[in-house]
Amino acid sequence: MTRYALLIEYDGRGFVGWQRQVNGLSVQQVLEAAAAKLNGGAPVASIVAGRTDAGVHAAGQAALIELPGELPPPRVREALNFHMKPHAVVAVTAAIAPEGWNPRFSAIWRHYRYCILNRRARPALAAGQVWHVPQPLDAAAMAEGARYLLGRHDFTSFRASSCQAKSPVRTLDRLEVRREGDLVIVEAGARSFLHHQVRNIVGTLKLVGEGGWAPTRVEAALAAADRRAGGPTAPPDGLCFMAVGYEPDPFAG
Amino acid sequence: MTRYALLIEYDGRGFVGWQRQVNGLSVQQVLEAAAAKLNGGAPVASIVAGRTDAGVHAAGQAALIELPGELPPPRVREALNFHMKPHAVVAVTAAIAPEGWNPRFSAIWRHYRYCILNRRARPALAAGQVWHVPQPLDAAAMAEGARYLLGRHDFTSFRASSCQAKSPVRTLDRLEVRREGDLVIVEAGARSFLHHQVRNIVGTLKLVGEGGWAPTRVEAALAAADRRAGGPTAPPDGLCFMAVGYEPDPFAG
Repeated sequence: MTRYALLIEYDGRGFVGWQRQVNGLSVQQVLEAAAAKLNGGAPVASIVAGRTDAGVHAAGQAALIELPGELPPPRVREALNFHMKPHAVVAVTAAIAPEGWNPRFSAIWRHYRYCILNRRARPALAAGQVWHVPQPLDAAAMAEGARYLLGRHDFTSFRASSCQAKSPVRTLDRLEVRREGDLVIVEAGARSFLHHQVRNIVGTLKLVGEGGWAPTRVEAALAAADRRAGGPTAPPDGLCFMAVGYEPDPFAG
Repeated sequence: MTRYALLIEYDGRGFVGWQRQVNGLSVQQVLEAAAAKLNGGAPVASIVAGRTDAGVHAAGQAALIELPGELPPPRVREALNFHMKPHAVVAVTAAIAPEGWNPRFSAIWRHYRYCILNRRARPALAAGQVWHVPQPLDAAAMAEGARYLLGRHDFTSFRASSCQAKSPVRTLDRLEVRREGDLVIVEAGARSFLHHQVRNIVGTLKLVGEGGWAPTRVEAALAAADRRAGGPTAPPDGLCFMAVGYEPDPFAG
C-alpha cells in the first residue's frame, strides 16, 4: 500500500460540503468513489485538512488516501481526475505522503479567503463565488474592526453553536481586509479555525463596513464570549479554503 | 425619450454570443427583452461596443438603449437587472448617454484579456472561464513572440475567414503575456479588433509557448498575410472583453 498526499481544488456549489451526508453529494464521496476505482472497487477512506461546509470552495484543500501497489503520484492524480469527471473537483497535485503525515493534525497553518462583491448589480461572472452586498462597505473600517480579533482569544462569539471543538480558544495570525475595485477581500490565517469562525467574523465585519457597528464593537463582541454578541453568519459562497501549511511540505518539489 | 449608456457584465456560457441568433439565447436578447419591459412591452433595439462570440465573457461591455420618459439611470439599471434575472447578465452601471455617443463607433480603445490555465488538472473553480492547456507553456517565449504583433499591421493571418471588416489592417497597442502561478494571461489592447483576432493570436502564441514554434515564426506568420500561416483559434472560454474607452467617458463620475 502507498499513502498519497493530494492537493484538491473544488467549486463548492452543488455539494453538501466536504463530508458525506445522506442528503446529497459531497466532495469526499466524489474523491473516494474515484479512489475506489484504483482499488479494485473496494472502498477507500480519505482524511482531509478541513471539512468545508456546503457551498464553500477550495483552491488548496489537502487530503490523504491509501492505495495498493506503488503507482507513481502523477498517474494517481491523472486517474483520480479522470474518474472525478464531470464533477467540479480535481487533484491539482499528488505526492507520496511523508511518514506519519496527517492532513488534519499535521497542519501548522490554514488560510481562508472571503470575497464580497460590493456593488449594486448582482454578480454575473463571479456568481456563486462571492457574497453580494449591494450597500457600500467601508473596507478601512472593517480592517480596523478586524484588528481586535488578531491573536489568541476565546472566539465563542464567532463560533457555530454546532461546533464540536473542545476549546473555543484559537490564535488568529492574520485577518486582513482590502478593497480591489468592487471586491472587498478578507484574508484569514490560523493554525486551526472553529466551525463557521471565518463566516461569523465576516458577517460581523460587514456590519462594521455598513456603518451600523463602530469598529470597537467588534472588541466588545469578542469579550462577551457569547454567540449572540457576534454578527450573523456570512453565506458560504464567498469563502474559499486557499491553502494549508505543513513542515515539511509534502507538495514541495 | 432618453438614451442610456450601459456597462454590462456577462458570463458567456450558455449564450450564442452577443448577437441574436435563431439557434439559441443571446445576451442581446436578454438585454432587449428586459428593456422592452420598461417600454410598455414594445421592442427596444440596442447598440453594442463589441459583438462577442458564443462562450466569450464580458466584464465591461458597453451598450446603448433608448427608453421613454426620463427615468433616473440608477432606476434603469435596477429595473434591467431585475428583468434580466436569472440570466448571467447584469448592468453594472447606467448613465445618460452623451450627445452623439455610439458605443461601437465612439470607442477609442478596447481591452480583451485571455486566461489560460496551464497545469495538468482540468479547472474546477475557473471552469468555463479559462482555456485548459495541460502541457507546460513558456510565457517568456510567448511574450517574445507577441512583440512582433505590436503596432500597425495587416492581420490577415489572424483574422477569421468570416470577418466582415473592410480592411485587415489594425493597430495593436498592447499585447502582453504574463504568468501568475498556474495562469498564463494575455492582455490585448487596440482601437478595434478583427473577428477572432485575439483568439487566433492566442492560439498561435500557445504554439510558441509549447516550443513547437520559435518566437520569430510569429513574425513570419504575420508577414505571410494568409490565415493558413497563423495558428489555430483558441477556444472562447478564456476570453473576456474587459473594457472599452471613450472620450469623454459616459460612465465617469
